[in-house]
Amino acid sequence: MEQKIQLKESDIPRQWYNIAADLPTPVLPPLGPDGKPITPDMLAPVFPMNLIEQEVSTERWIDIPDEILNILYRWRPAPLKRAVYLEKWLDTPARIYYKDESYSPPGSHKPNTAVAQAWYNKQFGIKKLTTETGAGQWGSALAFACKILGLGCKVYMVRISFDQKPFRKIMMNVWGADCVASPSDQTNAGRKVLEEKPDTPGSLGIAISEAIEEAVTDKTGKTRYSLGSVLNHVLLHQTIIGLEAKKQLEMAGEKKPDIIIGCAGGGSNFSGLAFPFTADKINGEDIEIIPVEPTACPTMTRAPFAYDHGDTACMTPLLAMYTLGHAFIPPPIHAGGLRYHGMAPLVCQCINEGLFKPRSLDQVECYQSALIWAQTEGSICAPETSHAIAVAIQEAKKAKEEGKEKVILFNYSGHGLMDLNGYQAFLNNKLEAFELPDSELEKAEDVLKSYPKAEIRKSGKW
Amino acid sequence: MEQKIQLKESDIPRQWYNIAADLPTPVLPPLGPDGKPITPDMLAPVFPMNLIEQEVSTERWIDIPDEILNILYRWRPAPLKRAVYLEKWLDTPARIYYKDESYSPPGSHKPNTAVAQAWYNKQFGIKKLTTETGAGQWGSALAFACKILGLGCKVYMVRISFDQKPFRKIMMNVWGADCVASPSDQTNAGRKVLEEKPDTPGSLGIAISEAIEEAVTDKTGKTRYSLGSVLNHVLLHQTIIGLEAKKQLEMAGEKKPDIIIGCAGGGSNFSGLAFPFTADKINGEDIEIIPVEPTACPTMTRAPFAYDHGDTACMTPLLAMYTLGHAFIPPPIHAGGLRYHGMAPLVCQCINEGLFKPRSLDQVECYQSALIWAQTEGSICAPETSHAIAVAIQEAKKAKEEGKEKVILFNYSGHGLMDLNGYQAFLNNKLEAFELPDSELEKAEDVLKSYPKAEIRKSGKW
Repeated sequence: MEQKIQLKESDIPRQWYNIAADLPTPVLPPLGPDGKPITPDMLAPVFPMNLIEQEVSTERWIDIPDEILNILYRWRPAPLKRAVYLEKWLDTPARIYYKDESYSPPGSHKPNTAVAQAWYNKQFGIKKLTTETGAGQWGSALAFACKILGLGCKVYMVRISFDQKPFRKIMMNVWGADCVASPSDQTNAGRKVLEEKPDTPGSLGIAISEAIEEAVTDKTGKTRYSLGSVLNHVLLHQTIIGLEAKKQLEMAGEKKPDIIIGCAGGGSNFSGLAFPFTADKINGEDIEIIPVEPTACPTMTRAPFAYDHGDTACMTPLLAMYTLGHAFIPPPIHAGGLRYHGMAPLVCQCINEGLFKPRSLDQVECYQSALIWAQTEGSICAPETSHAIAVAIQEAKKAKEEGKEKVILFNYSGHGLMDLNGYQAFLNNKLEAFELPDSELEKAEDVLKSYPKAEIRKSGKW
Repeated sequence: MEQKIQLKESDIPRQWYNIAADLPTPVLPPLGPDGKPITPDMLAPVFPMNLIEQEVSTERWIDIPDEILNILYRWRPAPLKRAVYLEKWLDTPARIYYKDESYSPPGSHKPNTAVAQAWYNKQFGIKKLTTETGAGQWGSALAFACKILGLGCKVYMVRISFDQKPFRKIMMNVWGADCVASPSDQTNAGRKVLEEKPDTPGSLGIAISEAIEEAVTDKTGKTRYSLGSVLNHVLLHQTIIGLEAKKQLEMAGEKKPDIIIGCAGGGSNFSGLAFPFTADKINGEDIEIIPVEPTACPTMTRAPFAYDHGDTACMTPLLAMYTLGHAFIPPPIHAGGLRYHGMAPLVCQCINEGLFKPRSLDQVECYQSALIWAQTEGSICAPETSHAIAVAIQEAKKAKEEGKEKVILFNYSGHGLMDLNGYQAFLNNKLEAFELPDSELEKAEDVLKSYPKAEIRKSGKW
């Protein structure tokens, strides 16, 4: 058996899978400031209409334009790999497969949607995209996509990361993007914060406000905003991961996976792998699907299901989701991509249905697993990805205890070559474990009580 | 046509190609301190005998043990890619192919030999390897290989890089290696330097001395030294690159490459790609083969051919090569892997024969090419690799001028994700061009005149 299962470019999936078509109970609608469901028109200043159509679509399959595939071929189809060395080290009867999304030029799954979003914006006549970024994975992915497609790109990068992680900023510059520290003096939102707190480290919430402000106030009307996770169309673009994986598992002679695992911050890499298999689970297949989050930011495992803004500055519509409240500031764990107060509404609805069983893990256990991974399989994973690896190890050990030949599949969402400080802290025993105190959940309830109530609806089938 | 030409693992080459079997005129022998050719026994305290046998072998094909292939499968066979976007941007009739060696966990071609060397040492009963590293590519590759094979690993890292590039050191730690700044207080050689110059930034020469000293003074006899380039057996292990590329070019429907390009510091990545095609050139095929070096360290294009030590501290045997003198300290260009005073004797002999036509380039032109690459093909290359890309661009432009459909093949030796400072300097117009003054060549002649003369011998066929 080959260790890497490769698809040819000619075998790449040619349609994305839209889980909205198959959900037994639909997601609650996003609400506007007046508490009423928003209409596509209300989103038009922020996103191009072709992406808004995808956002609200309930078509099961959506064609991937050839021009997008031609760009993805730079690194896709991504290999499915078998973790034979980890299996041996664990002495497990489980067969562990992972989808390696680290091969893209920016090093993660993010370009799958960045390229698609940039392409649809270009089709719509847009000339420039704005966005925010925390640690820089998303900002660099959008910079890459915009350069390849000839669009301008402006990234508002949270000040503290801008100062501490100069390499991601250089990457964005190499791909021609303009990257400024947020809060900046280039927007009203930024200037207001700088006046009040000149020394602020910034936050994703402020950066989102700045990026949206620049998009909606551009007088040419040729600038739009782009988001790297959470929204339906973003998750849709990532389903190419799971669709490839299905073909590859078949090539490997596996009938189906027993367990699917992905780390989840906003939910896009997890959904990209999981949704195509979730369709099978909805149709009766026995698959355990596990989104993994940090105990420091336990949205799915501890937070209330409620209507809340996607950003700290309350500029986005209200989304029905598991949320720690838009004012929540997560502890400074190394997995920056998992430090988000909410969760994609589609993922939340699958949790409500009982289709997904979320799990939370402390970063110390995650780094232990990342080290085992690096020393057996050989590659150095992103701190976010280590959460998926840790659960894969838990499940492989369980399979050993139970003496079962389980098929485990997880998403290797990105490499950690630009995030090595966390490894150093772990090796020097300076890594802290974070458990969120209940008081933070009480604060969240307090922030959320002024919004319309989000009722948990489910079909009761799972 | 697919943009990536993939071999299956079952199609991987199962023998390395040894060019020593086909050279019309053999390489001059290495000499010991007494000026006489060294014998294998004299190398035994430094290298295991199985690798010494490879070093002196003239067998054309040497079997690759299955256990080594099993480790290489983590990332090999490496894809051959067609640079269709660069071709389009250049509007060239040339077809540009490149072998992507950036997929290995440490990010370059170096593990091809690191794994082989660690495996042969282990077979010979060795428990620990020592080595030196400059910027850290080689040190991290050997750390990776030793961890995978269960050997100890000690890396002496040049002090200034140790302080300025902490990420490579963390990588080595993740793979369980002990990495210390050189000069260190752990060897006589290191202590001597520290006494005289406590604030020295260190040098590769000192680091080599420390690594060899630790290996030869280990009383258990179970420690050996490992070198990442220059030597025959190192170049041998890299020929898997060119052997794969030959199969892949055939799959792409190409009869032969017209031009082969690789950057060359010690010569290993260049030789790995070039040697299997050099065999065809020796047999009459018309192929232009171009090793590329920086103008700041112009070994092949300006230095004398002479007997010289491989290291600054004069611990190695004398090798017949193009050399700027073992005391030469190259200017601080960003391509750390090309800052070496000498060149692999096998490469030098091919130059003497007229089989290779070396070229030198300034780092500013190289970074210009790296930026064009990143903005067309999408990936961010190592500063060393940019030298190969720059010549590929030169040759593609020439093909356009001549109106010829040339097939260009170069080695993409590694990614630049951990070397982004050079890109920043370039983008900020702070990158310096270096041209070596003639006075440095006079100094080299002066250093070299006390050694036995190395006569240029050639068959006169090219």
